[in-house]
Amino acid sequence: MRVVVVGGTGTIGSAVVKALSARHDVVPVGRKTGAFHVDLASPDSITALFKAIGTCDAVVSTAGIAKFAGLDELTYDDYFIGLKNKLMGQANLVRIGAQFVTDRGSFTLTSGVLSREPMKGSASISMVNAGLEGFVRAAALELPRGIRINVVSPPWVTETLLARGMDQSIGLPADRVAQAYLAGIEGTMTGQVIDPRTIGRA
Amino acid sequence: MRVVVVGGTGTIGSAVVKALSARHDVVPVGRKTGAFHVDLASPDSITALFKAIGTCDAVVSTAGIAKFAGLDELTYDDYFIGLKNKLMGQANLVRIGAQFVTDRGSFTLTSGVLSREPMKGSASISMVNAGLEGFVRAAALELPRGIRINVVSPPWVTETLLARGMDQSIGLPADRVAQAYLAGIEGTMTGQVIDPRTIGRA
Repeated sequence: MRVVVVGGTGTIGSAVVKALSARHDVVPVGRKTGAFHVDLASPDSITALFKAIGTCDAVVSTAGIAKFAGLDELTYDDYFIGLKNKLMGQANLVRIGAQFVTDRGSFTLTSGVLSREPMKGSASISMVNAGLEGFVRAAALELPRGIRINVVSPPWVTETLLARGMDQSIGLPADRVAQAYLAGIEGTMTGQVIDPRTIGRA
Repeated sequence: MRVVVVGGTGTIGSAVVKALSARHDVVPVGRKTGAFHVDLASPDSITALFKAIGTCDAVVSTAGIAKFAGLDELTYDDYFIGLKNKLMGQANLVRIGAQFVTDRGSFTLTSGVLSREPMKGSASISMVNAGLEGFVRAAALELPRGIRINVVSPPWVTETLLARGMDQSIGLPADRVAQAYLAGIEGTMTGQVIDPRTIGRA
């Protein structure tokens, strides 16, 4: 399969690219660098990206920005960073990209565990992640030509916790998280929120 | 308690006002008419509303607009109708209203069953409803002075189905839905998504 990975240069994205490369033709997309790049907050940039890449069998997104800050610190505009980038940016990958995806192709997006397991400072991120999961459940009912859509809701990644000097015991290694994306791309499910903590464990 | 009901003139809102009036001082807020009214999509309008009303013990919202349309019909701007009105409008009731709510007061907002039980045409509404539920779970961790926040996720209301000539068998009467708001206002829960179908049933 020809698989586009938006955010393929990040911690999770790199692990997904590595896991996919063994048996698929991977097209990594970065934010500012690389052969293909995209500004998720810009619908025009997304349109230009798909026109440049052409047809593909699967689109993965491990990208998207939203602001982490206290409820009393987040401004009205701060909320729209996440709503325009991580939420509508990923929704736009689907809205715009669907016509470039082959029959029975797939989208695998990224939310995050803060959707259902919030912490102080996550008001905007929890909103964005949960909103994306709601969109995916609904969009799955309407995508044409057997195209599937799922969203991976990653827990904290061990590598990220390590880089930030945080407690690693709650984390999952990026290569384990990547398996959730493989399940979305190579499986048959649609409209699902995939928790990487439950993948590969009987 | 002095309870502000934003959307107190709608189908659910009217039932909530009726149920509350027996034992509380209710301040209904409409969209364009009545002693108090507010444009949910405008933060300035919300600020003006709370300055006019002053201190209250609970804020209920049964208001908020989002567009119902097919995935291939919804424009980028259509999504922002719901993101600015039903989602950020209700989040702003909390962000702006918190300083007007008494200690151990509460917010009770409204999402909807399409958050987790989507249908064709609900991509934007499912996004908005789920996003609001994510926000509520997170905001509950940070609101000051013991202020609680919950969100009622109503199913289809019988009266609405009747008015639209739709099958009423999946609906719940508005006065039953209103009991979920009473549970939010008078109970002790916080950060919860309240399903009216589970209220008052052992």
